[in-house]
Amino acid sequence: MTNTQPARSRQQRRQDTLSRLEQDVDCWVATAAADGEPCLVPLSFVWHEDGVVVCTRRTNPTGANLVRDGRVRVTLGSTRDVVLIEGEGELLTDDSRTTAADAFAAKLTWDPRAEKGYVYLRITPRVVQAWREVNEIAGRDLMRDGTWLD
Amino acid sequence: MTNTQPARSRQQRRQDTLSRLEQDVDCWVATAAADGEPCLVPLSFVWHEDGVVVCTRRTNPTGANLVRDGRVRVTLGSTRDVVLIEGEGELLTDDSRTTAADAFAAKLTWDPRAEKGYVYLRITPRVVQAWREVNEIAGRDLMRDGTWLD
Repeated sequence: MTNTQPARSRQQRRQDTLSRLEQDVDCWVATAAADGEPCLVPLSFVWHEDGVVVCTRRTNPTGANLVRDGRVRVTLGSTRDVVLIEGEGELLTDDSRTTAADAFAAKLTWDPRAEKGYVYLRITPRVVQAWREVNEIAGRDLMRDGTWLD
Repeated sequence: MTNTQPARSRQQRRQDTLSRLEQDVDCWVATAAADGEPCLVPLSFVWHEDGVVVCTRRTNPTGANLVRDGRVRVTLGSTRDVVLIEGEGELLTDDSRTTAADAFAAKLTWDPRAEKGYVYLRITPRVVQAWREVNEIAGRDLMRDGTWLD
C-alpha cells in the first residue's frame, strides 16, 4: 500500500493511458437502466478510431442501456492504476460496424459476428482521468470535453 | 488468455469470494444519478457485518447517489477473476456507523472520521456472482435474493 513512486506528468499519464487502451483486453463498463438501476460488467474491447469499441448482446442490460442512453463510464485495469473514462456510446452500423468488428476480431481472436444478437458500440471519451495513488489525484484530468489537455 | 483451469465448484467459488471480501482492499462501485448518469469509482472497503462498507464524501457523486437511491453494483479485482455484487446501500448512523468506522480504520490504516464530510455506507449483497473465464459463466450465481445458494 505504501506508495514510493513520484506522481507522473500529464504527458506520461496520457502516454500510459493510450498504451493501456491499445494493449488491455478488458474494461469495466457502467451504465444505468431507465429506472435508475446501475449496471456494471466486464467486457472485452478494442481501441478503434479514438473510441472504446465493445460488443455485447443487444438484450443484455448493458446493451439495452447503451442503445437507449449512450452515457457510460469505463475503467481499465486495477484500482491502483486507474484509467477512468466518461463517454458517449453509439451503436455502430454499416461501414463503421464492419471496420470496428474487423478490429475487434483481429485483437480478441473472438468474432461475435458468427453469433446472433450481438451489437457493436463505440464509446467516445469526453473525460479521461488517470491516477495510481493518492499523490496522483491532483493532475488526474487528461481530457475534458473530448479534448486532450496539453 | 488461454484458460487451462477447470471450472470451480460453487462451494469453492463462495469460499474464494468470502476470502476476497476479507482480504481485498479496493472495489469498483457503480451507481446512477437521478438523471440516469452512471458513475463508477474505485473505493476502499471493509467486509463488515455481511456487507461491503465504503466511505466517501456525501457530496461526491457516489455518495449523493447512494444516499438518494441505494441500488448499487460492486465488483472486486480483475476482469478475469470477477466477483460481482448487486446490493443495496444504506447510510450508517449511530452505533452501526461507529462499529463500521472502527472496522474500516483497523483494516485500511485510514480513518476518515478525522476529516470532514465523509459518510459510511454498508452495501448488503442481494446477488453475488463469481467467474474467472468463459467456462465459469455457467454456475456463476452464488447468492440470489440475499441468500447464499447451497
